[in-house]
Amino acid sequence: MSVAAAIGEEGRTDARRSIALDLLEKRFGNRFSRGAEVRRQHANTTNWLPNQPPDAVVFAQSTAEVAEIVRLCHDHRVPVIPFGTGTSLEAHVNAPFGGVSIDLSGMNRILAVHAEDLDATVEAGVTRTQLNAAVRDSGLFFPIDPGADASLGGMAATRASGTNAVRYGTMRENVVSLTAVMADGTIVRTASRAKKSSAGYDLTRLLVGSEGTLGVITELTLRLQGLPEAIAAGVCAFPSIEAACNAVILTIQSGIPVARIELVDALQIRAANAFSKLDLPEAPHLFVEFHGSHASVAEQAEAFGAIAAEFEAGTFVSATRPEDRTKLWQARHDAYFAALGLRPGSSMIATDVCVPISRLAECVGETRADLDAEGFIAPIVGHVGDGNFHVSLLIDRDSHDEVERAEAFLGRLNDRAIAMEGTCTGEHGIGQGKRKFMLREHGAALGPMRAIKAALDPLGIMNPGKILPEA
Amino acid sequence: MSVAAAIGEEGRTDARRSIALDLLEKRFGNRFSRGAEVRRQHANTTNWLPNQPPDAVVFAQSTAEVAEIVRLCHDHRVPVIPFGTGTSLEAHVNAPFGGVSIDLSGMNRILAVHAEDLDATVEAGVTRTQLNAAVRDSGLFFPIDPGADASLGGMAATRASGTNAVRYGTMRENVVSLTAVMADGTIVRTASRAKKSSAGYDLTRLLVGSEGTLGVITELTLRLQGLPEAIAAGVCAFPSIEAACNAVILTIQSGIPVARIELVDALQIRAANAFSKLDLPEAPHLFVEFHGSHASVAEQAEAFGAIAAEFEAGTFVSATRPEDRTKLWQARHDAYFAALGLRPGSSMIATDVCVPISRLAECVGETRADLDAEGFIAPIVGHVGDGNFHVSLLIDRDSHDEVERAEAFLGRLNDRAIAMEGTCTGEHGIGQGKRKFMLREHGAALGPMRAIKAALDPLGIMNPGKILPEA
Repeated sequence: MSVAAAIGEEGRTDARRSIALDLLEKRFGNRFSRGAEVRRQHANTTNWLPNQPPDAVVFAQSTAEVAEIVRLCHDHRVPVIPFGTGTSLEAHVNAPFGGVSIDLSGMNRILAVHAEDLDATVEAGVTRTQLNAAVRDSGLFFPIDPGADASLGGMAATRASGTNAVRYGTMRENVVSLTAVMADGTIVRTASRAKKSSAGYDLTRLLVGSEGTLGVITELTLRLQGLPEAIAAGVCAFPSIEAACNAVILTIQSGIPVARIELVDALQIRAANAFSKLDLPEAPHLFVEFHGSHASVAEQAEAFGAIAAEFEAGTFVSATRPEDRTKLWQARHDAYFAALGLRPGSSMIATDVCVPISRLAECVGETRADLDAEGFIAPIVGHVGDGNFHVSLLIDRDSHDEVERAEAFLGRLNDRAIAMEGTCTGEHGIGQGKRKFMLREHGAALGPMRAIKAALDPLGIMNPGKILPEA
Repeated sequence: MSVAAAIGEEGRTDARRSIALDLLEKRFGNRFSRGAEVRRQHANTTNWLPNQPPDAVVFAQSTAEVAEIVRLCHDHRVPVIPFGTGTSLEAHVNAPFGGVSIDLSGMNRILAVHAEDLDATVEAGVTRTQLNAAVRDSGLFFPIDPGADASLGGMAATRASGTNAVRYGTMRENVVSLTAVMADGTIVRTASRAKKSSAGYDLTRLLVGSEGTLGVITELTLRLQGLPEAIAAGVCAFPSIEAACNAVILTIQSGIPVARIELVDALQIRAANAFSKLDLPEAPHLFVEFHGSHASVAEQAEAFGAIAAEFEAGTFVSATRPEDRTKLWQARHDAYFAALGLRPGSSMIATDVCVPISRLAECVGETRADLDAEGFIAPIVGHVGDGNFHVSLLIDRDSHDEVERAEAFLGRLNDRAIAMEGTCTGEHGIGQGKRKFMLREHGAALGPMRAIKAALDPLGIMNPGKILPEA
């Protein structure tokens, strides 16, 4: 039986669901809402996938409350959809079978900061900037930065990463332990606070990236890093995407512990020049950042500069003062709005794939040719140290033809990445949007994934219609 | 139904099992053995837990062969126990319900080295030193070093780590993807070769540490590191365990990217002085190693030396030439044989726990007091940057009293670690020996673990009697 069938479209109006919603309303009072606008805001709002609102939204304030809600939904066969900030990009928060959206944004307490252990325990609704503000005085920071100021629970659920991942890893590497409410309302703690363990199945990593389909993450213990003594930033232009990628490969092979290394393609540079009044050459650029001691970042910058020169880069400009670094990175920081400026009034479809770094130049090159052949305006930016890149398709959502051609392009993009031993998503997740690529990417491994889903959520109430394609 | 009950003790002699063994013998000829000595060697030989041999051993040479064996065992309800080098410490390779040991040591081909991507794909029987020899000419190395020259499949299955983990992580962080044979003989590839992915459940991390209870790992794609340009090693004595631990905490908080930082307690130093003819002061020592550029390792060593001085360490001696580094680290390298020398003729029980680093001094201190009160000779060595430490109990295995008191001590040690927000094992795994601590450590999280086991191995044939305690 498919997950969707277990819930059943007809379930939306059945008597049990009405009873459950009434019980929740009675229990949570003004923290329960059936308002159309609240429901709409709790479904997908970030791309062209339809907005599919839940039947109701409950604003939870504790793990115990989440457990209470899930247990009630379990007993009445009502879908449960966890909601953090709603910034995910593949419609993870949609409710295609209705159900109850659990808004965790009120669970925003920082429960403990263990500076000596370099970890902090937070509620799932705490955002990354909130955590960083709370730990800065201890000389610490949390490195994962997916762009949006997302909730940490949501970042764990979608296995988020971003520009710093090349040095500090993704949410996969930076979650020590989770508290989660499982499908029957049981509260589990996935691991101790030890930095490593060989004690049993890695439930932490199983829940990280599970997008609410196995349990609702309510608390997280996260690894923190010491704030670097010094930061150096730099930028330089390359004659080609390939040259830039080869410079990245050599940088990483040489053991330069680069903290960020971002590729920005020529079209995005053109956008940045227009938007931010810059005069960078319209060529692929690498934006880099180094963390360490003063001597170390100087050495790293020098070593990187030498590698860039080997690949015929333009002048490598670097800086260490915060204001100078911000200026150097402006074209990267402004990428989103600058890109929109390339086609005023258009909508951006942000997508990502990830390939082994040896295939990156080829994958980006073929993708650029594909986009150009279709006449799409679509800059490319990449977390190139990880082989991960983003295409920002600027389309007219009202044009049936453009939408259709964009969807066909996305199909080719994902097939291309998978064929190059890569993945259909490096950091955005599957949600609804990428379910169709799961079989191609995973083949027989979909079997164990389905078995795990069925075992941990036999009624199929946990964020149904996400990750796993229909059988 | 418990895993054990699913197989059933009586199953050992049932007709189906005989048929399966005969079929395997016919199929694999002289790569199949029922010889008593071969069977004994394929069961536990590393500690006091009983040697429980399988019914037969098959020496597999390919993933397809492993799939064939597992499918046949599945169809005839015969337990399957994967075997690499047999060096695990918690009786992971024992066959308490009989069955077929699949010896993977013949699967020792290095299938691909992708130097540009910093990864290599190997068969499960390849050992870590074999991999390192194969990639050295590419300027690369594989950092995980659990001491024994274990097979990489076994290291993944037990989530091994070792001295380098503080900088490079454990097998959890260093496996990119696995090929595994699941309980019904299906071959799955858990992930692509992309460095990161958000595409579905993390089957890689689920199989890492699953000790053969969910599937047989047959191939691995592993992350490699660039060989550092320079290595510096160092050593210094501290007035107390607490001072040494505090120096470690400050080292890590300061962002010094230490590659190794090992605690060796006073008793182990005494053993080393005797065994290796050294004259180190009989006090807790830290052994450190730094990787990086020549300038960087010099800077790291200097920064560490300053921190050590803050905590009243003795003179910090460091060196960069290989022969000098080996000499400096001799007391650490010889730890095993030196410890045995403390009580000639005794047997060593090697055990490990792991706690948050802030609790390490307390945990080691209480453990030392406990050992002394019992009159045990038992040096302590720790991967202290991770909060992980080892106790090497030297006992007379023939003394019922000593064995009993040692078991009671192990119970207290594990309870102590768990009570300090730690884990009953940082890197040895659960196997048979630590199943009794699983409930205390994981509580309600045992439920999802059992559900996953039942879903992926409904017949309970995969390495039964390991990890999960009887229900």
